[in-house]
Order: sequence, then C-alpha cells, then structure tokens
Amino acid sequence: MKKLIIYDTTLRDGAQTEGISYSLQDKINIASRLDSFGIDFIEGGWPYSNPKDTEFFNYFKKHPLKNAKLVPFGSTAHPARPAHQDKNLISLARCGTEYVTIFGKTWDLQVKEVLRVSPQDNLKIISGSIKFLRSQGKKVFYDAEHFFDGYKNNAEYAIKTVSAAILAGAQLIIFCDTNGGTLPWEIKKIVQEIREIISFGDFGIHCHNDLGMAVVNSLICIEDGCSHIQGTINGYGERCGNTDIVTALGVLKFKMGHTVSCEKNLTQLTELSHYVSEISNMIHRDASPFVGRSAFAHKGGVHIDAMLKNPLAYEHIAPELVGNHRRFVVSELAGKSSLVLKAKELTFDLDKKSARAKKIHKLIQDLENQGYQFEAAEGSFKLLLEREFRKYKKFFELLGFRVTVEKRENNELISEATIKLKVKGALRHIASEGDGPVNALDSALRRALADFYPALAKMRLSDFKVRVLDAVEGTAAKVRVLIESQDEKESWTTVGVSENVIEASYNALADSIEYKLLKDSKPRA
Amino acid sequence: MKKLIIYDTTLRDGAQTEGISYSLQDKINIASRLDSFGIDFIEGGWPYSNPKDTEFFNYFKKHPLKNAKLVPFGSTAHPARPAHQDKNLISLARCGTEYVTIFGKTWDLQVKEVLRVSPQDNLKIISGSIKFLRSQGKKVFYDAEHFFDGYKNNAEYAIKTVSAAILAGAQLIIFCDTNGGTLPWEIKKIVQEIREIISFGDFGIHCHNDLGMAVVNSLICIEDGCSHIQGTINGYGERCGNTDIVTALGVLKFKMGHTVSCEKNLTQLTELSHYVSEISNMIHRDASPFVGRSAFAHKGGVHIDAMLKNPLAYEHIAPELVGNHRRFVVSELAGKSSLVLKAKELTFDLDKKSARAKKIHKLIQDLENQGYQFEAAEGSFKLLLEREFRKYKKFFELLGFRVTVEKRENNELISEATIKLKVKGALRHIASEGDGPVNALDSALRRALADFYPALAKMRLSDFKVRVLDAVEGTAAKVRVLIESQDEKESWTTVGVSENVIEASYNALADSIEYKLLKDSKPRA
Repeated sequence: MKKLIIYDTTLRDGAQTEGISYSLQDKINIASRLDSFGIDFIEGGWPYSNPKDTEFFNYFKKHPLKNAKLVPFGSTAHPARPAHQDKNLISLARCGTEYVTIFGKTWDLQVKEVLRVSPQDNLKIISGSIKFLRSQGKKVFYDAEHFFDGYKNNAEYAIKTVSAAILAGAQLIIFCDTNGGTLPWEIKKIVQEIREIISFGDFGIHCHNDLGMAVVNSLICIEDGCSHIQGTINGYGERCGNTDIVTALGVLKFKMGHTVSCEKNLTQLTELSHYVSEISNMIHRDASPFVGRSAFAHKGGVHIDAMLKNPLAYEHIAPELVGNHRRFVVSELAGKSSLVLKAKELTFDLDKKSARAKKIHKLIQDLENQGYQFEAAEGSFKLLLEREFRKYKKFFELLGFRVTVEKRENNELISEATIKLKVKGALRHIASEGDGPVNALDSALRRALADFYPALAKMRLSDFKVRVLDAVEGTAAKVRVLIESQDEKESWTTVGVSENVIEASYNALADSIEYKLLKDSKPRA
Repeated sequence: MKKLIIYDTTLRDGAQTEGISYSLQDKINIASRLDSFGIDFIEGGWPYSNPKDTEFFNYFKKHPLKNAKLVPFGSTAHPARPAHQDKNLISLARCGTEYVTIFGKTWDLQVKEVLRVSPQDNLKIISGSIKFLRSQGKKVFYDAEHFFDGYKNNAEYAIKTVSAAILAGAQLIIFCDTNGGTLPWEIKKIVQEIREIISFGDFGIHCHNDLGMAVVNSLICIEDGCSHIQGTINGYGERCGNTDIVTALGVLKFKMGHTVSCEKNLTQLTELSHYVSEISNMIHRDASPFVGRSAFAHKGGVHIDAMLKNPLAYEHIAPELVGNHRRFVVSELAGKSSLVLKAKELTFDLDKKSARAKKIHKLIQDLENQGYQFEAAEGSFKLLLEREFRKYKKFFELLGFRVTVEKRENNELISEATIKLKVKGALRHIASEGDGPVNALDSALRRALADFYPALAKMRLSDFKVRVLDAVEGTAAKVRVLIESQDEKESWTTVGVSENVIEASYNALADSIEYKLLKDSKPRA
C-alpha cells in the first residue's frame, strides 16, 4: 500500500485558534517535537504576514530538522504585481526550505468579489506565482482554496485553476474545504470526478471541522487519489478547527491499515497530543479519540464484567498501541475486585483477600460517603495507594492558614492568604495576595515551597472545578473541588471535599503538589 | 422527505460520561427542556439498575411531558429466568411509558462468552423479552448491541437476532456500534446489505465516537433505511462520547435538508447546548460545530475582509439559524431580535429599534464578555429588565463585607463574615459564622435584612453551582456562581461572576434576594 504523507499545519492554521498565541520558542519546540515524532511536512508559518514566522525559518536555517521538511505558507502574487516582484513570494523563496506552499483562488465568485480580477487573469496569477517559485528552485504545494464550493458553483473553472497549477509545475494540488461545510459524500464524489478528468499529479486534502467531519472528510477521499493529508495536532484551528491529525493517524494505521512515516512512534501519540496541548495552553479534551483521558475509561458496571471477558467488546483497539491505557472509573468501586483491578492498572499489586485490600477498600468507602469521588480524581486515588504502599516521607506539613476577602466601601476587593508550613525541618510563614481567595492560597503555598522544590515551577493548574454536593443545603452544602494540573509530560487530577470551599480547594491543591513531587522523586519505570 | 426521529439518551448514555453525575432534579430539568425543544424521544434512565431513575419515571407519571415520549432502558431477560419473572423487564413495564427500549446481544462471541448461553437460546431470550413487554401493552425499541462487530464476525447470526426481534413485535431495530470502532463506509455497506435482506421494519442507529465519527456514522446510513437517530446533547457519553445530537441536527436540517420535529426551534440550538452543559457542569467546547463560542468567530485579518464581501466564504451557514452569532475575535454580538423575543416572553414590551433595546443589548453584551450567562439564570435576566423598565428603589445597599477562613494548628476551621448594609435609611453591621465562607456571608446578609423583610424567612436556597471559566487560569480563573432559590410558589435562578468566588457568590445571593423582594412587592398579575 502506498505510503501516506502527513502535513502538519499546527503552527500556521492551528495558531488561528481562538485562545492560542505561540511565542517563537513555542513554535520551535513544537516543530522539533513533530520532527522527532516523524511527521513528514511541517508548515511553520506565513513569513510575509508575520515577522515572528520569518525568525522561525531563520532559526531552522541554522538548526535543521532531522527528518521533517519545513514549509512556509503564503498566497499567490498580488494581482497588481508580476510574481517576481511580489514581496510575499520573494519572502517565501528566501525561507531556506526545499518546499513552499501557496494558496490561490478556485471559486469564480471569490475571484470576482475578493481578488477583483477576471477569471482568466486569476489563472495567470496562479501559473505565474508557481513558475516564479520553481525558478527559485522550490518545490511547490498548491492549496486550492474553497475548492469544493468553487467546484459546486463552476466545476469547469475550478478544474482550470487546478490544471493551471499542475502545468506550471506544482508538485501537489491540495483540495481545501475552506469553510468546512462540505459533507463527506460530496467530497468523495467531487474528488472521484476530478480524478477521472485529471489522472496526472498528486493530490492532498485540507479540511475544516465546521460539521465535525474534518477527519472523515480527509480520510474518505484518500482511496480516490489523495495521498497527502493536512491537519493539526488536536484539531486546533480557527472556528471549529482543522482535521485532527492525532485522530487521523489512529484511524489510518489501526482501522484502515495504511502506512505512515511515524508509525513506529504511534505509541507516543498520547504524549504528543498532551505535549502540544500543554505548549498551546489549551485544556486537553478527556473525550479525544485514541488519546483522551477517558478514551479507554469504563464506568458502567455491566461493561466492566463484559470487558474482562472480551476487551474488544468496548475497546476498538488496544490502548497501548497509541500510548494510552485502560482505566476503570473508580467511583464504581462497589466491589473489591474492581479496586484490585484499578490498583493493578496503576502498577500496585494488591491481593484481593489481603488485610491491605480490606483497609484500602474501607478507606475509599468512607471517603466516598463524605463526598469524595475518585472517578475524576485519579491523582488523589493514586496518592492514596502510594501512601499505603510506600509510606514515603511527607514533602511538607501544614500548620495553618488564614484567608481573608474584604470588600471595602470604595468597592475595592482584597484577597489575602497567609500560610504556615514545615518543609524539610524549616518553618515557612508566607503571605500572598491573589485574584480571589483560592488563588491567594495557591500562591502562598507555592511561594512557601519554591526554594525547596524548584520543579514546581514546571507544573501549572489547567482546570479547576467546583461541584456543590447536597445542593439543597444551599450555601452550607459540601463542595467538591477537582483540580487538574499538568506539566510537560502528563496531566493529573486531584480532589478535595469540605463544607468550606477554601478548605476543599486547599486539600485538592496539596494533593496535586504532592503528586508532582512524588512522581519526580521516583526513578522512571 | 420522510421525517427523521430524534432519540435523546443524554440522561442514560450521556450520564455515563466521566465526570457527569446528575441529581434527580438535574434529570427532570433536562428532560423538560428537551421536551419543550421538540426532541421526539427521551431515554430517561435504567430504572432497574438505578433507584434514582425509578423516581424519575414516577415524577413524570404525575407531571407528563408535553410532546416528547419518555422511554426507560433495560436489557433482555436474564438467561436464568423467563421474561415474565424478570425484575428488570417488570420494572420497565411499570414506568408508565408507552415505549420501552431494551438491548440484546447480536455478536455470537458475546453470546457465548458473556451471556454464556447457546446462540439459539439468545434468540429465544430476545423474542421472549419483547413478547412479554408487548403483552404489557408496550411498544418496544430493540437496541442490537455490537451490531456491526457481530455482523462482521457472523452476519447470518446477526441477522437472525434482528429478525427474531422484528418477528416478536419490536417497533424498531436500532443498530448499535457499541465500541465505536466502525468506519462510516463499513456502516453504510452493512446497512445496505441488511436492507436488501430485510425490507420490512423501521431502523435506527446508535453510535459511539471512538473514532471521532459518531455523527457521520449516524447520518451516512439514513438514506439506506434508518429513520431514527440516537445520541446525546453535546455528544456526552462514556469514553469518547456518543453521537452529538446538536451537530447532527445542524447537519440534517441545514446541509442535508431533512425534516425534524424540532426544526422550528433550531434557533435555540446554541442555547440548548449551553443549558445542558451548564446543568452537567461540563465546560462547553468553544470549537463545537454550530453552537460553540468560536464556531463563527473570525480571527484572521485576511478572512475578515473577504468575509464582509462574501460571508459564505468562511461561514457554511448563517449562524442565526442555530441561534449562534458571528464574532470578530473579541466582541460579543448577541442578537437583538432574540433579546426582544426573550423580553416578550417575560412580559416586557421591547421595541427592537428603540434606544432602550439598544441600551439593554449593550449591557448584556458587556456582561457576557465578563462571563455572565443568562440562559441558566433567568432570575438575574429578569431583574436586569425590571431595573430598566421599573426604576424601582433599591431594597438595600451594600457598604462592604469581610470574610475570613482560618485553619488553626489544632486543625479547627473557622469561617466568619461581617457585612455592612444600609436598609430603609438604617445602618446594619452584622457578624456571623457559617459552614464555610459563603454560608457565613449568606447568614450575615439575611440577618441584616430580617427585621425589614420578614418574608425572606420563607425563601431558601435550593441549589448552588460554581462554574470555573477560563479554566486554564487555574485558581486565578473567573468563576460563575448560579444560585437557585425557592419559596412556596416558584423557584428562580440568579448569577454572579467574579475572579473571586466570594464576590461571585455575593452577587448571585444579592440578586436572589432582590428577586424575591421585588416579586412580593408587586401586585399579582
């Protein structure tokens, strides 16, 4: 079977995501990681529209990637200028790369209304732009913008634009579903029609996820002549995002049996996905196919029994293939057997009939009765086992805290926390202000520990949830606080319960920090 | 074109989501909302496995839904018992519903390894279970579990199970892709093959999202004889979730041109999606197709120019069709027409072109930008209109508060609040302790007002929810507090937003009290 080519545009189209803003260093880190993972092409940015992107390409002139080809992105020449005088094209030619990607107009409506040139002139612009880049020694990928809308509106003209690009020497034509509104069966039909007309040349596909179908739309047409898939890690991108390369890789390899360059590294797929989410400062979605925290998590009691008899019943692949793992959701610890199973999953060997199993089971039941829930707090659950199995020394001891929130008559609001800890024999008494009481406490706690545990600087809180229990008690209800933290390797969740939201938050915070310190103190498995 | 049937299982399969835990009241609220939205069938739960679900069905015996049919879910009879003695089936028959859904085994492997009966006996179990429910006057939906895996492994047997269900009188057969691992073109091929063999009967489809393809998998086969789609709001569900009904509705109506019962309410699709996310205490995904905050958000400068010339270039449909709106990065632009509509519903006559409408619209936009959300806080929304229309006198004025939480070395935890108010010209300065800081503040506020407004003794808080916004900010994130209050006549919900959980709670509390005092001060309508 022909090898498929993966073209990543996380650093260009992914950077258009609302809320994502990459620094130069972020971009360099992501590109390096994609390179070592085995992605074929990495679209690094649009140098003409963004000076940061020029620096990015300059960096890699001096520090070339090992395997991947870096590609800059830009547009065809401005209608008012010949290609060889177009600054955008010149900047592309100067990026020091073997390949260059440019996009041009396919949709006659866009040619008229946006470019404001004749259909014939647009063909000349496409052709001239590609010929110029070829004359500069570049291989050219041509993105046919709005390809499917253009084809539906005027198929003959859409084909002319693509033909012009091929005849000018484009290496590859990429069909773009720019507004993400095309259905998979429409895409398939159009690609089939095109392939009957143009049998020469290589084709790629670039989809947006406005119907939640970008991955399918990309995969459905590869059998009809597309061998190149564009997308982003975790499906980042403007609006509803782009084709999620992570999901696409899982399906291509494990469900469709295709060959890809990175296949020997697919056991790192889960880690790659979390790494990019971390650098992008985006919450990693638990429900992400293949790589999400919940992707192989089993909650229903009926399932768990059937699962053990036949894992295929509820797992379409073995989670280890993508570096993920099976999880049994802990709240369903009705029986001791599922506790033993869950412990085993976390590499603790627990004999079902032992006194230790009995003790842990009782402890969990008591905590669940108080309102703890370990289902969404595996970090705290693991700590509970660690404490029982390892009897390690506490990293710090809380002596007390005080948190004050004051709303003054001038409407000013002040949150202040003081905390007293014993750390490695020393006493720390720290005060800190914050954006609210929990933030003030968090800040005081970290400041108190910073000198002793500098690794904490690499950990950050990525999610903070407050759930009110026994809600009919109103403001006197117990609350459960869940905190998700992450470092550059993984994310973990911890829990705290109290009638007092400050205390519940403190408990979850303290567990989170303990989890980080504990895992760093262990030799890697 | 034939009308498609939408079957929602948010309350059953959606409740299997890691992190979701619905109270009985949550379930009642969601069911009522789905009913008024126009969903055809609502799967309410599994009464035999969950006592809370029995209470749920009992509630609706007394308070029937207006349009939707409620459906309980369960399994075929236990192999060891005849159907008429099976407690699970009996509990289904007693739910007081016209329809019942049961699932049975299709995959010979599962029959052998999990049920541990002969293939022939499984057919008898399916048939006997359906016949029993029919004898109790129920219409039966039959979920063919693992249908596609079963079919791939032993097509002949899979067809036998479905035939047994049809011949026993099942109203509808639902093909389930239980482990979510089937590709759309496989599903299409199998459904086509089945439809050639069985031309009688109605078929439905139930997909899981383990390949990120549940929506496509559901939609791709409706042209081949499926007229019934099962799924959940926002795609909630175990592992990677179920078919997202919200996305499916958008595609069915606006991309495929199908007819659905709720089509006149599709302008509320965005609101419905947020409502369920709020009740489920799940973060609403910005990138959700059709309804996400970013779904029609434009960041790129290139886009914005082209957008204005031709919106279709980057918007596959008009966002208003689903109650969403176009955004240019920062600014929120909630529709003025929907504001007028909503005001009218609350008996305020607002002219869309008036200065007042403009002013209120602007105010709401500002508040939404701060993180307020009025969908689940109609009380606060109504107050906002009341303040604009009635210019009534404030019931009290806050001068300041201070809340302290102290954890002492003896592990004792003290929460104390002081509050200073002006009420009817008098100054009140009150201190109070509480079970946590919000309770202490609530208690101080009520004590300060008690002498002036004795009716407050008849009001109590019935729910208290805390939602973290911008969760990546960790403990410095903004929080939104929703408070539900009730007196002997009605219940109402109010909202407060702040980076400080205490201030957000105070704002929601103050609104809640103002709402009560205002409605008591009005002559009854």
